[in-house]
Amino acid sequence: MVLWGCIIDFFTYESTRFVVVKNWSVGIINRIVQVAIIAYFVGYVFIHEKAYQTKDTGIESSVMTKIKGFGRHNGQIVDVADYVFPPEGTDVFCIMTSLHVTENQFQGRCPAPWPYTCKMDDECKKFYGFVSPKEDNGSPGFCEVEGWCPTENEPIQTEPMGDIRNFTIFIKNSINFPLFDVSRGNVLSTMTLEEIRKCTYHPEKSPFCPIFRVGDILRYAGQTVEELIQKGGHIGIKIEWKCNLDIDLDYCVPQYFFGRFDNKNAVSNGYNFRFAKYYKSDNGTEYRTLYKVFAIRFDVIVTGNAGKFNMVPTLINVVAALTCLGLSTVLCDIILLKFLKGAEQYKAKKFEEVSPAQTDESFTPIFQF
Amino acid sequence: MVLWGCIIDFFTYESTRFVVVKNWSVGIINRIVQVAIIAYFVGYVFIHEKAYQTKDTGIESSVMTKIKGFGRHNGQIVDVADYVFPPEGTDVFCIMTSLHVTENQFQGRCPAPWPYTCKMDDECKKFYGFVSPKEDNGSPGFCEVEGWCPTENEPIQTEPMGDIRNFTIFIKNSINFPLFDVSRGNVLSTMTLEEIRKCTYHPEKSPFCPIFRVGDILRYAGQTVEELIQKGGHIGIKIEWKCNLDIDLDYCVPQYFFGRFDNKNAVSNGYNFRFAKYYKSDNGTEYRTLYKVFAIRFDVIVTGNAGKFNMVPTLINVVAALTCLGLSTVLCDIILLKFLKGAEQYKAKKFEEVSPAQTDESFTPIFQF
Amino acid sequence: MVLWGCIIDFFTYESTRFVVVKNWSVGIINRIVQVAIIAYFVGYVFIHEKAYQTKDTGIESSVMTKIKGFGRHNGQIVDVADYVFPPEGTDVFCIMTSLHVTENQFQGRCPAPWPYTCKMDDECKKFYGFVSPKEDNGSPGFCEVEGWCPTENEPIQTEPMGDIRNFTIFIKNSINFPLFDVSRGNVLSTMTLEEIRKCTYHPEKSPFCPIFRVGDILRYAGQTVEELIQKGGHIGIKIEWKCNLDIDLDYCVPQYFFGRFDNKNAVSNGYNFRFAKYYKSDNGTEYRTLYKVFAIRFDVIVTGNAGKFNMVPTLINVVAALTCLGLSTVLCDIILLKFLKGAEQYKAKKFEEVSPAQTDESFTPIFQF
Repeated sequence: MVLWGCIIDFFTYESTRFVVVKNWSVGIINRIVQVAIIAYFVGYVFIHEKAYQTKDTGIESSVMTKIKGFGRHNGQIVDVADYVFPPEGTDVFCIMTSLHVTENQFQGRCPAPWPYTCKMDDECKKFYGFVSPKEDNGSPGFCEVEGWCPTENEPIQTEPMGDIRNFTIFIKNSINFPLFDVSRGNVLSTMTLEEIRKCTYHPEKSPFCPIFRVGDILRYAGQTVEELIQKGGHIGIKIEWKCNLDIDLDYCVPQYFFGRFDNKNAVSNGYNFRFAKYYKSDNGTEYRTLYKVFAIRFDVIVTGNAGKFNMVPTLINVVAALTCLGLSTVLCDIILLKFLKGAEQYKAKKFEEVSPAQTDESFTPIFQF
Repeated sequence: MVLWGCIIDFFTYESTRFVVVKNWSVGIINRIVQVAIIAYFVGYVFIHEKAYQTKDTGIESSVMTKIKGFGRHNGQIVDVADYVFPPEGTDVFCIMTSLHVTENQFQGRCPAPWPYTCKMDDECKKFYGFVSPKEDNGSPGFCEVEGWCPTENEPIQTEPMGDIRNFTIFIKNSINFPLFDVSRGNVLSTMTLEEIRKCTYHPEKSPFCPIFRVGDILRYAGQTVEELIQKGGHIGIKIEWKCNLDIDLDYCVPQYFFGRFDNKNAVSNGYNFRFAKYYKSDNGTEYRTLYKVFAIRFDVIVTGNAGKFNMVPTLINVVAALTCLGLSTVLCDIILLKFLKGAEQYKAKKFEEVSPAQTDESFTPIFQF
Repeated sequence: MVLWGCIIDFFTYESTRFVVVKNWSVGIINRIVQVAIIAYFVGYVFIHEKAYQTKDTGIESSVMTKIKGFGRHNGQIVDVADYVFPPEGTDVFCIMTSLHVTENQFQGRCPAPWPYTCKMDDECKKFYGFVSPKEDNGSPGFCEVEGWCPTENEPIQTEPMGDIRNFTIFIKNSINFPLFDVSRGNVLSTMTLEEIRKCTYHPEKSPFCPIFRVGDILRYAGQTVEELIQKGGHIGIKIEWKCNLDIDLDYCVPQYFFGRFDNKNAVSNGYNFRFAKYYKSDNGTEYRTLYKVFAIRFDVIVTGNAGKFNMVPTLINVVAALTCLGLSTVLCDIILLKFLKGAEQYKAKKFEEVSPAQTDESFTPIFQF
């Protein structure tokens, strides 16, 4: 019998009781507030913020680059094998624009890079890790350096390689959104082989061409070739993938952005690095040619996200919308209870009081828990 | 006294009034709908989508690679120092499979790569940045190139290095999920040193072995060695970490996937790059040997996410579930109000009307705000 | 007329009816529960977890590094061009600490790295891809290797380059949060050029100095120079950006962390790689010097996220908070209905029963749907 009672209780249906108020002002305010809330959720939350989608921000990317062009530098004609570092075509690469060459360095001792007079050994050592002062007949000595000699030349003003502006960079970028298992490439299948071979990237005219003129890149980054080839620079090529996977995949295309990294601060303006080519003399002694390479470094940075409809965020936002709809009641109740003449009747209907006499038990029962 | 009234008001408890309907059909429908909603939330939202977790998608990763093996190419036995580019063992590396060598190039002038007859200088210049036509006794000249001479050889068919299939790649990957401060490595501590030294990766038999045979990798990627060694290729090795940090950390293990990047489009099929070795002749003139390297490039791509219980998403989803439970009322009310004979009585109980006479104030009070 | 009815219905306002209970115990419990819920949401969800923000975890980053210092190794003074691999200053770079040199290798045949006696060809071949045993007058032969000869030297204990501790690494890191379009650099604009040139990173004294002493880095990573320079090692430099974009951008600064990757497992402790320098003898034969480089490899890993106020998560969490507030009713109703003496009166007021007689229609009407 108790079980039967429980079953009946379980299948008893309970539904909230309402007060119905047929009052134009309150009714209209109620609906206006509700329409505003719905408009906000539909327009901003769902359409603008796409809150019905899950986002995949963990884009996987692989970048391959290939540079083409011939340049004239220091009376030589140089090609990719000479001016691209590293040669493998990774996402970070440098194109040499200017070189300071210090030829035929042997290990030994030689004067410090500039004739530095010193009275004490300490002074020399402070400036060069390995230094010994020459001191003949009491006159102040000159610092001597131990290491590769002669020391690096002072930069001689050579003509930098302006031809770089006509070099072209081919960028191949393959991406994958792991959450949705969607793969794309920046070499679109809608372009023919012929088109791709001939094209040059232009933001409006050919925004999907994967071949970029260096001069154009610098221009889009707000730089001039002249500015950068003297001291080098650090340029970013950003490939942005923003994909809405609820629509056709053909709209999932890259966008390119260009910017410069190294001029935000006066420190270390420009870009250069040193490397050496090593040779052996006939007697087996190793010697080297030191190169201080001024280069434009390009970083290809791939970024993006993909969104796709998913029940979980959709439900949460629909629930939020429905709950917010209920908020209009708060406003309307204030109006009804405070500003309308019939407030007393409304109050009486809405709130049924259980008189204190009926439930005047104080705290004791609670502690029976 | 006013304060006292406020305090009493503040501690007044209000509770919604319900209509109770003891009707089997409505009660059962109500419970069925509620069970369906609970099942959906528990099964899909909580268990399948793990909506009770926060996800860390900002995986931090470091990859170290090491290649082993000897190969025969062009009559020489080559080792890692010869065929791996770059040598440092980073996440992107290339294994040379075939070489086109152009030896002993000096700066100078020489005929264009193929005997290009031209009548005008412009024609020559169009094809080579730095060209001057030879014009002897009026006959059409041949283009001459300025630069490294002789120019690059036409590719001679050499036997590519098939031994690459037996090379092994050791990959060490350390990851960290910064949000939860959890670090893992793909060289699992459950494997002994002995096991790791002897093993070779196999998806089923030894899925956690960090040593990969190149031939296997290509096979898992759906490629054949023969296809790739002629023209090179671009292979992706994906290491995926999907970790549920609510269970034992030992289940947080990597999964490996293999794929090819460069055959999605006919453009730039294969993979190659050029580099040069520089020498000095006895009289100090620099000359070089140009290498066009056909290689298989491997990109190790690390991806993944970790999830862990967190109160905020849990609460939000529980709230969403509870609110959705309330939706069953909507359905049941429709049934009660429209389809049951007792609808009128139910309606009268559920909706108490405050007659228009009682609250017939129109818009004016509102503007008193 | 029907339309008019619909309009009236549409603008009819409905508001929930409440039972009002003026009982101290219930009222106080109700408010305590509500205060606890509000405190939880305000304190934990909103202030601690910053649930009112959207997070951008897709940080874009570019890293440039530059090493300075002179070291003494094997009787030579070496500089950056000698000891940094690769020279370009990318986010992954190695500083050589010790070298095993095998000079003047020519292609040919020579004894295996250790005098390996073998009776069968197979045995030799198992260990070296290309091996042929020397067999003179029946005695067990020695394995011979085909390839670069002589084979690699057994490691001779050379003095590693301890000077590395005084080398400095300048790290320039530019980041961007694409969602909010906020760019920052680790070379803060609040530091003067003079300050940056002179400073050295210290976690407390100068936490924003972008110049790091190698010795310090190893110390912060819990390592000693002595440990690492023998066998090399793999060090991570983590730059963490945690930015709250609701406050001033000047607080969006990097934090540096240091750790070691290669000692988590006994396998492949240390770090080394091989490369070769190639020379040409007078008769044009190529020969090489093989270097086994023991190096400390540094990986600069950039990580971080930015948060900014956004209406969508804020609304969702406010809605969750409001819905949770309603949960206090559940507790209070249990108290009222079970533990207070006036429970019956309360029950009668709260639940108005529509008697079975009034709605005794069974399942049939439902199927009219």
